[in-house]
Amino acid sequence: MRNDTGRGLFITLEGGDSCGKTTQIELIRQWLTELGITPVMTREPGGTALGNEIRALILHGPEDVDPRCEALLYAADRAYHMATKVRPALTQGRVVVQDRYLDSSVAYQGTARALGVEEIRELNMWATNNLLPDVTLLLDIDPVKAQARRTRELDRLEREPIEFHQRIRQQYLALAQAEPERFHVLDAARSPSEIQADIRRILTPLIQSFVIDGQAQS
Amino acid sequence: MRNDTGRGLFITLEGGDSCGKTTQIELIRQWLTELGITPVMTREPGGTALGNEIRALILHGPEDVDPRCEALLYAADRAYHMATKVRPALTQGRVVVQDRYLDSSVAYQGTARALGVEEIRELNMWATNNLLPDVTLLLDIDPVKAQARRTRELDRLEREPIEFHQRIRQQYLALAQAEPERFHVLDAARSPSEIQADIRRILTPLIQSFVIDGQAQS
Repeated sequence: MRNDTGRGLFITLEGGDSCGKTTQIELIRQWLTELGITPVMTREPGGTALGNEIRALILHGPEDVDPRCEALLYAADRAYHMATKVRPALTQGRVVVQDRYLDSSVAYQGTARALGVEEIRELNMWATNNLLPDVTLLLDIDPVKAQARRTRELDRLEREPIEFHQRIRQQYLALAQAEPERFHVLDAARSPSEIQADIRRILTPLIQSFVIDGQAQS
Repeated sequence: MRNDTGRGLFITLEGGDSCGKTTQIELIRQWLTELGITPVMTREPGGTALGNEIRALILHGPEDVDPRCEALLYAADRAYHMATKVRPALTQGRVVVQDRYLDSSVAYQGTARALGVEEIRELNMWATNNLLPDVTLLLDIDPVKAQARRTRELDRLEREPIEFHQRIRQQYLALAQAEPERFHVLDAARSPSEIQADIRRILTPLIQSFVIDGQAQS
C-alpha cells in the first residue's frame, strides 16, 4: 500500500460519532512528536478556510438539504483539501494524520442517505484524483455505547436515530473487509490507552523511514 | 423533447459573458406575463439562499480554488436548486425560465479548466438526477464584441483572457450541434428586439398549452 504521490505517509482515522477519534489523534500526534516527526494534522470536513465555510453550510444550512447536494459539498471540500494541503504535504515527504476521509462519505451518504455506495465512492475518487490513504484506522464501537459517552451538544447528523448510526457502522465494517490491506479495525469500546497501544503497533513499521536518526533510539 | 417530470416546461438560456442573456430573460418574462403565464424565473449559480452562499464561495473565495472543487461546488448548487425549486415547479406544471444550467458547467469547467467535458457532464447529470431542459436558447456572440458591451466590474471568471472565452464559445456550439433537438443557436450580435423575435417564434408552439384561455387571444 502506497499513496499515489509515492512519498510521505497518509494515515486516516474513521469511525462513527463519539467513537473516540479525537483522543486517539491527539495521542498519535504526541507519540510522533516524541519520535522527532512533525506530522501534518488535518480533518474533513474542514481542514482549510474554504473547507470550514463548506462545513458550516452543511451542518448549519437549511434542513431540507438535498442528499446529492450534501454529497457534492463534502466532495468539494475534499477536492480542495487534498489539492491544496494533503497532496502537497505528501509530495514533500510529510506524515499526514487525517480525521475522516472518503470512507466517511461512503459510510454516511452512501448508506444512510439512500444514495448508492458505489456512486459516492466514484464521486469522491474523482474529487480527489484517486488519492487513497496508506493506512486507515477504523475505531469500531456499538453506537449505543458511543452515544452514552457524549457530553457536548449534538449537530444535525448526530441527532439521527440509532438505526442510522448502526447502518453506518455496518458499512464501515464492509469497507474494511473489502480492503483489508488498507484498513485496521480497532475495538473502540476499550480504554484509550489500550486502543493507542494497538495503533502504535500498527504504525511503527510504517513510520520507521520518517524517524529522525538519533531521536529514533531515544 | 420533454423534461423527465413529464409536466411543465423547462427553458434554459446559455451563452458566454455579456451575451445579453439578462435582457432577453426579462423580455421573455414580460411576454409570458402578457400571455397570462406566471413563469418561475431562476438562475444558476444561485437561485436559492444556499446557492447564493455557494456562488459567493466560488466567485469571491480563494484564488487557488482547485478546478475539481469548483466543479463540485457548482454541481452542489445545481443539485439543491433542481431538487428544491425547479423539479417541484415543473411537477406542478409551471413554466421555468432559467439563466444558465448544466451546459454552462460543461462549457466553462469542462473545456476551459482542463477537466474532461464528459466527466463534467456525468457529474452534473448525477447531481440533477438526469433532468434536462425542454429547450435551450444559446445566445452566440464573438467574445470580442461581447466584451465591448460590458459596463460593470468584472468578476474572477470574466477577467480570464479572450482565448478562454473563445474556447467556451466553441464548446457551446459543439454542444448545440450534438443535441439539435434541444438547442437553438441565436445570433446575439443583433439588436435585442431581433433576438427576442426569434425567441418568441421558437417558444410559441411550446407554450400553447400553458396559455390561459381568454388571455391567449387578447
